[in-house]
Amino acid sequence: SDPAADAVSRRQDTLTKPRGSLGKLESIAAWLARWQGRDMPRLDRVKVIVFAGNHGVTAQGVSAYPSEVTVQMVANFAGGGAAINQLARLAGAELSVIPLDLNHPTGDFTQTVAMNEAEFLAAVSTGYESVDEDLDLICFGEMGIGNTTPAAAIAAGLFGGTGRDWAGRGTGVDDSGLSRKFAAIDAGLARHAATLADPLAVAANLGGRELAAILGATLAARHRNVPVLLDGFVVTAAAAPLAKLHPEGLAHTLSAHVSAEAGHRQLLEALKLAPLLDLGMRLGEGSGACLAVNIVRSALECHARMASFAEAGVTDK
Amino acid sequence: SDPAADAVSRRQDTLTKPRGSLGKLESIAAWLARWQGRDMPRLDRVKVIVFAGNHGVTAQGVSAYPSEVTVQMVANFAGGGAAINQLARLAGAELSVIPLDLNHPTGDFTQTVAMNEAEFLAAVSTGYESVDEDLDLICFGEMGIGNTTPAAAIAAGLFGGTGRDWAGRGTGVDDSGLSRKFAAIDAGLARHAATLADPLAVAANLGGRELAAILGATLAARHRNVPVLLDGFVVTAAAAPLAKLHPEGLAHTLSAHVSAEAGHRQLLEALKLAPLLDLGMRLGEGSGACLAVNIVRSALECHARMASFAEAGVTDK
Repeated sequence: SDPAADAVSRRQDTLTKPRGSLGKLESIAAWLARWQGRDMPRLDRVKVIVFAGNHGVTAQGVSAYPSEVTVQMVANFAGGGAAINQLARLAGAELSVIPLDLNHPTGDFTQTVAMNEAEFLAAVSTGYESVDEDLDLICFGEMGIGNTTPAAAIAAGLFGGTGRDWAGRGTGVDDSGLSRKFAAIDAGLARHAATLADPLAVAANLGGRELAAILGATLAARHRNVPVLLDGFVVTAAAAPLAKLHPEGLAHTLSAHVSAEAGHRQLLEALKLAPLLDLGMRLGEGSGACLAVNIVRSALECHARMASFAEAGVTDK
Repeated sequence: SDPAADAVSRRQDTLTKPRGSLGKLESIAAWLARWQGRDMPRLDRVKVIVFAGNHGVTAQGVSAYPSEVTVQMVANFAGGGAAINQLARLAGAELSVIPLDLNHPTGDFTQTVAMNEAEFLAAVSTGYESVDEDLDLICFGEMGIGNTTPAAAIAAGLFGGTGRDWAGRGTGVDDSGLSRKFAAIDAGLARHAATLADPLAVAANLGGRELAAILGATLAARHRNVPVLLDGFVVTAAAAPLAKLHPEGLAHTLSAHVSAEAGHRQLLEALKLAPLLDLGMRLGEGSGACLAVNIVRSALECHARMASFAEAGVTDK
């Protein structure tokens, strides 16, 4: 039990609606209060940060698009032409894009580590530093051709299973691409088998720079009292090591949506996260998280501005 | 196949995202185009209309609240204190509230018809006339103490089954209230058994004024090229006779959400409608429909404003 969340629940029960009838909107208001540490939460400053990285494992033929698309899409974000530009504007969220050393892809994890310790810590640190103190809600997104492969590898590394259990078609690989993806993940798991018990080693050896940055940013959000909306499969996998490090490691996050990428639903189940939305999206960029911002705003507007039974002169049962 | 919807699909496939990766946002854009009859849909004018009515069947002890709450909540809507006021504002939607003869509840359908033909047609007509020509999207909501009982009775009348199959706790009746609800519905079905094959007779004999108005308004929206977001159990039951009258009778509607009210999921399945949201809400007022407006706006913003691969200089696969 948390004092701010309890204050929210007490107020909810006075508002002009049957008790509990706003469903998840009521629990979202309490969640905001708990992690902001305020009886009356606010959403004055909402931010979306998209981290971008490139991946050595694309050498294994795991993606439908070439790696050059990562930097092209970063330019598209800057020009305002991507989905996340439209969705962030509609959500009333600032958008920031942070490319991580795009000219230096990670190591191909079937052959070596994705990142050595210094590279991993640099990416985690970039993510950590990107989270301002005075944010009220944050969404993380990612762009990185090939990155559903490291995401699936992290999921398998943390929760067991093989490539086949966790990998999906990502941006749309065909059957042979999907088979190469399974094989690459299995090769990575075999190569790094000795370190799979260490969640941070899994993130470094099998992950990617943008995923490491999301891990760092999710941790920073916890330290800075900023609730987090998790986006799709890649973001969820990126943050998952925090749940392995501490049972409450992701308690300040909500899953915004379950994506159409094959492993996401299973990963959310492993993390005991219940997604707010299920719209068949599989774009990344923070697009699903951004869509959920309006749900969170709706929760707060109802909580903050509805009249009580007494104020409105409505007979309570 | 529809020309406007096809134009949307062709444009979607040029935008800077993997094909299909926006999931339902892509089909929503096509749905808007189809029912607005425009290659590029718009959402300049979105409206929520809440219809309110009172119900003779409350004499059977089927609701947790007294009927006086209907008019009190209409006053609360006027004062801006209800959930729908906050949600409509956030959705950028005009809110209109239309009370239907609140001082004259419908007949208790366990004893007589809920509405005679003149009363039913007057309510349908009020709903029909409430839909302006120049709207781009409309949501219907309802307020009426006791109205989950006529909603369940209509569902049973149209699709078979008994009170137990369709009724839930509404605003929160206890176990004995729920048993009275089952019994009232079963008594209504028995009394009006001879007319259950006529969907409009079901709506008149077992329904309510606000439900009849929603039926009329949903029909008007079809005639006036205005796509409709259906709210919860009561609104869906109110519109359901249109699906019985014509197999495409509700094709211009989307189910905004599935509510926590027991019969709603089953009713959506009977109507082959897939809800956009599932947030455990059971408030009515159009609250679930309003939450989905932002999803529809998101679909349109992405469709209208994203750059194409060619425009952004991004390599397509």
